[in-house]
Amino acid sequence: MKLYEKVLEGLVHRIDQGYYQVGSKLPSIRVLSQESQVSISTVQEAYQRLEEQGYAEVRPKSGYYVKPRGDLPDLPEVSRPAQRPLEVSHWEQVYHLLNNAKGNGYVALGTAMPEIDTPTLKPLMKSMTQAAANASDSFLNYSDIHGSEFLRQQIARLALASGCKLHPDEIIITSGCQEALVCSLRAVTKPGDIVATDSPSFYGSTQAIKALGLKALEIPTHPETGISIEALEMALDQWPIAAIQVTPTCNNPLGYTMPEPRRKELLRLAQQYDLPIIEDDIYGDLYYKSPRPRTIKSFDEEGRVLLCSSFSKTIAYGLRLGWVAPGQCTERVLHKKFVSTVSSPPVQQQAVAEFIANGYYERHLRKMRAQYKVARDMTIDLIKRYFPEGTRISYPEGGYLLWVELPIEVDTVKLNKCLEDRKISIAPGVIFSASGKYRNFLRLNFAKKPDEEIRAALQELAKQALLLMEQA
Amino acid sequence: MKLYEKVLEGLVHRIDQGYYQVGSKLPSIRVLSQESQVSISTVQEAYQRLEEQGYAEVRPKSGYYVKPRGDLPDLPEVSRPAQRPLEVSHWEQVYHLLNNAKGNGYVALGTAMPEIDTPTLKPLMKSMTQAAANASDSFLNYSDIHGSEFLRQQIARLALASGCKLHPDEIIITSGCQEALVCSLRAVTKPGDIVATDSPSFYGSTQAIKALGLKALEIPTHPETGISIEALEMALDQWPIAAIQVTPTCNNPLGYTMPEPRRKELLRLAQQYDLPIIEDDIYGDLYYKSPRPRTIKSFDEEGRVLLCSSFSKTIAYGLRLGWVAPGQCTERVLHKKFVSTVSSPPVQQQAVAEFIANGYYERHLRKMRAQYKVARDMTIDLIKRYFPEGTRISYPEGGYLLWVELPIEVDTVKLNKCLEDRKISIAPGVIFSASGKYRNFLRLNFAKKPDEEIRAALQELAKQALLLMEQA
Repeated sequence: MKLYEKVLEGLVHRIDQGYYQVGSKLPSIRVLSQESQVSISTVQEAYQRLEEQGYAEVRPKSGYYVKPRGDLPDLPEVSRPAQRPLEVSHWEQVYHLLNNAKGNGYVALGTAMPEIDTPTLKPLMKSMTQAAANASDSFLNYSDIHGSEFLRQQIARLALASGCKLHPDEIIITSGCQEALVCSLRAVTKPGDIVATDSPSFYGSTQAIKALGLKALEIPTHPETGISIEALEMALDQWPIAAIQVTPTCNNPLGYTMPEPRRKELLRLAQQYDLPIIEDDIYGDLYYKSPRPRTIKSFDEEGRVLLCSSFSKTIAYGLRLGWVAPGQCTERVLHKKFVSTVSSPPVQQQAVAEFIANGYYERHLRKMRAQYKVARDMTIDLIKRYFPEGTRISYPEGGYLLWVELPIEVDTVKLNKCLEDRKISIAPGVIFSASGKYRNFLRLNFAKKPDEEIRAALQELAKQALLLMEQA
Repeated sequence: MKLYEKVLEGLVHRIDQGYYQVGSKLPSIRVLSQESQVSISTVQEAYQRLEEQGYAEVRPKSGYYVKPRGDLPDLPEVSRPAQRPLEVSHWEQVYHLLNNAKGNGYVALGTAMPEIDTPTLKPLMKSMTQAAANASDSFLNYSDIHGSEFLRQQIARLALASGCKLHPDEIIITSGCQEALVCSLRAVTKPGDIVATDSPSFYGSTQAIKALGLKALEIPTHPETGISIEALEMALDQWPIAAIQVTPTCNNPLGYTMPEPRRKELLRLAQQYDLPIIEDDIYGDLYYKSPRPRTIKSFDEEGRVLLCSSFSKTIAYGLRLGWVAPGQCTERVLHKKFVSTVSSPPVQQQAVAEFIANGYYERHLRKMRAQYKVARDMTIDLIKRYFPEGTRISYPEGGYLLWVELPIEVDTVKLNKCLEDRKISIAPGVIFSASGKYRNFLRLNFAKKPDEEIRAALQELAKQALLLMEQA
């Protein structure tokens, strides 16, 4: 074996074992030559071969970096949910997910929690501490039912980035996006109504559909372009649909971002059938590229779009701060919000408003977007390495959620059960469907760059999936 | 005029003008003798006459105190609401109340906000600041959907004082009592159902009845003993009632505290008709005497009572922290809570749990109960002094809300309108009824001991009421 081959072998080994992860910088030629006690030219030779073999890529004036290996895995196919309105089930699985997400020792691969361990949140802590110390002006006192005007002003300013011109008075602060979604649903439907949704779809909104006595009509959805306009149009002809609910940007869980022309088509369809659209934009600010996509709301001149969002995914879940711009339905949504919780805690509103007003939010977003993008590539790389052949993965352009399709033999509810002893939890596919579809799918969180613990959990997950396949 | 008569006249003048308020200590004999430059025995003579005239009372080893003048005013009569289920209206009036309650320069006589300017809340501020500074462990992170276990343990301990043995797992933390009430209502009814309520009744729950597509059947309610068991039984025979909702302790707005035998009768009736009771105990810990009354829940061995409460009235509104012990319905309420807001902010939960665990909550309660009792007598005294003849007032044994019946000619919605220019707001009676009753009633907050501003506002209110009577 030639000297450069030995060096090359060592590098490949370290990459395969994950010591050097996808996207990370490899040792400089000088350092590696000292470490391996070989010449500069030997190391250069090794790196060239490493690049040729697809392990590394060179970045000018920077050095060699670990490259995602080979092509991307296939995307999941267009979903084919049941072609009729259905009652929503699978609450037990949702409950299991939520209960094993909290800090009770689980490696919670299935949650949708952002990374909160970042210095860019320090200024928020400072604002929060100040607001908490200022009792009578802030944290103990009344906040009006619309929410803090200061915060609504900041949200209106941020909305410009998605092409939306909102007046602060058109915005209602809610207790998380969940309250925004459910108050919107309540405002535009009555029990027994049918709501058309993308499929797979966020379990919080499908469970709301269940709780409100509504039925979900899941529409086939493409993993890159989103809800099928054609299928939706057919459904609108066939069923008395009362509202359309979609998450067009950095979709949860499927990852797609709907192209702008399709957003306009969707709006036109809603106009044609005179229907409201509930647009969930909770991950919209986490789109990796700039500018972020325009919301459907931004094209809506009639106020038929109820735009829902929150800071749970972009800042932190524990804030429980969301908002809704309900267009024509503002008065009705305000009544629903009053009945639901009256108003939201003033201290979080004050702290977040300051965080945004001082430019810290945008700085935080820039950092998180970059970090999530790197984590996406690293996580996909690990899945490709560990998971059974035939695994398909979504390829999100924002956020931190992957939608993973395992071979048909793997029931992810069973898989979750197998992983329970090992204190690993996933989000099984069935909770993202009213019709019990997606039994061999799971949602995976990559907010944290995969560390040893996560790598081990993914390996264990893959191992259990293979065992289930053998048993099948 | 004798010397003691001059001193007496001065004292009476000062009491009438409110320099010395009901319940406050009068100057000591020594001080007044020096001030007035008369002998000790002259002052003693003056004080004796003052006592004889009913202005003052002597407290052994303490001195003379201003006494509420004369008898108490009459109580409002037993309410006679419409004898059929009705849809709830008057949201506009509720909205007006909420909007003019915030710190925009109004003297908000109508809100139900507690006094938060008290040193006994200092330890809470400290806990809150610490929790806010501890970002990753607390304010940014996930709280499970049941709510903080630490807080639920504290609530279970406190519940013992009302005779309730609750396990922490039977308690669900909510975003204020409103969420507890509305999730409870959702868990035990379906749209179109009839809910029996006391009358007058808290507008938050009647508006929830409206929003859920339910109908309210208001039951005649006695200002001292609460909802009429006899009338309720008749209603249960006549209508397919799905649930009973009451606030039996320190009722809002009527002020009654239901005697224990009647609580048991109410529970027996619920058993007989196999109905759930939603028991709102939000003011229960503010009962002036010790021990506080037992909740209906404490007699319930079948889990048919859904006990709702919060810290909004006992600590501060801005916390937005409530809880519910839903008995048999725990699973269903948990689903409603998840759909409504998923979970409540962890930072407030942590701070309040610490506040309770360290004994500060009970100390705070002791102080507030005593303060509210004094404020009640002072406020009733002012109403007697200023308000038109024929005014009737409730006599609550806890909390800080009065229910005031003005002469029949005074429409309190109109009165509220007249007061708007003067930046005074009240809670008009109509919002406490589904049937548009109580047009000449209003609810009055006495959480703050009446200062100059409140005295002036009450005088202005009385003046406008008299003007409305003249115009009628």
